[in-house]
Amino acid sequence: MDVSRSAVRDELGTSKASARIRAAAIEVFAAKGYGAAGTREIAASIGLSPGAVYPHYKTKEALLYAISLEGHSSVLDVVTAAAHAGASATERLISTVNAYVMWHADNHTGARVAQYELRSLSPEHFTVIAEIRRSTSRVFSEIIETGAAAGEFDPVDVGVATLAITSLGVDVSRWFPSKTYSDADVIAAGYVELALRMVGARRS
Amino acid sequence: MDVSRSAVRDELGTSKASARIRAAAIEVFAAKGYGAAGTREIAASIGLSPGAVYPHYKTKEALLYAISLEGHSSVLDVVTAAAHAGASATERLISTVNAYVMWHADNHTGARVAQYELRSLSPEHFTVIAEIRRSTSRVFSEIIETGAAAGEFDPVDVGVATLAITSLGVDVSRWFPSKTYSDADVIAAGYVELALRMVGARRS
Repeated sequence: MDVSRSAVRDELGTSKASARIRAAAIEVFAAKGYGAAGTREIAASIGLSPGAVYPHYKTKEALLYAISLEGHSSVLDVVTAAAHAGASATERLISTVNAYVMWHADNHTGARVAQYELRSLSPEHFTVIAEIRRSTSRVFSEIIETGAAAGEFDPVDVGVATLAITSLGVDVSRWFPSKTYSDADVIAAGYVELALRMVGARRS
Repeated sequence: MDVSRSAVRDELGTSKASARIRAAAIEVFAAKGYGAAGTREIAASIGLSPGAVYPHYKTKEALLYAISLEGHSSVLDVVTAAAHAGASATERLISTVNAYVMWHADNHTGARVAQYELRSLSPEHFTVIAEIRRSTSRVFSEIIETGAAAGEFDPVDVGVATLAITSLGVDVSRWFPSKTYSDADVIAAGYVELALRMVGARRS
């Protein structure tokens, strides 16, 4: 994990300036869509000249890749840590679904860019992100398989349940906050309950 | 219903030419994002001059609105019809979730434009679409409330369950087809099963 972590850091850019450029790019990409946004506009939004972005990110795609890499790596870290919090599969599922939904609510603008602009990544960069996404899905699949094998959960189609749980989390970044649900804790708690029902978790 | 249906038809444009322009626009918007797409490019993609689009759609936003109106009206029609298919709340939920998921899988490109480009509608047009979306959600909420009241379903947070079911359907248009799930029937059947579990439907 340490090796890949430092590789991620290197790709992202570690300076404060690069973090500021990524934050500005998230806002502009989310507001206009990646295709319609320009690096000139991103630079201007934080008072930089276009030339000041170039040493950090040579292209608009490099900036999108850095945002995607940061977002998807962060999700995987959060979900991996949550999957260790608890002894039973039920406790681990509660912790993991909660962390996943909270992440997408708390980081909804960045998540939206990371989740919905994947088509604009280069094939090489897309491959890296797709692998991180698969690792995140595997965390959920492993918990569901473990719970079903231990008799904690009902028999369930692990692939469909994993898809549904991750899909609900991703889609939070599309609509959150809404008039009805603007509290991340509330929607996370609601989705944890539904995930437990999906897998047929036995509860006292 | 007839009045609003004919109003929808008028707004959409009823000619074959306008339907062809909408289909072309869906492809271009889905490929590049609404913000980066131009009406000139849409026209050219089907061998028309830019001037040939103007009599049908005066602006790019009018075209997006027509696509959104057509998509969201179609979803509401499909879901409303499905909600009448069956006597019990369980049968009605099965039919309705199936129809909703199938629609988003079968029409995934148009659905993606209709669902993810709402921010680019004018405030007036957004209001119309938001009302149609609320009507669609109410179809699900009514079934869940009826099933819970009749003791067919477990007590459930109707708002969260409605949100989750509609969210799963919308998100299908983001990822469908995938390598693993490219058959609309398979994913619809899987999500019907999960929706029944979410509401705690009693089954023999």
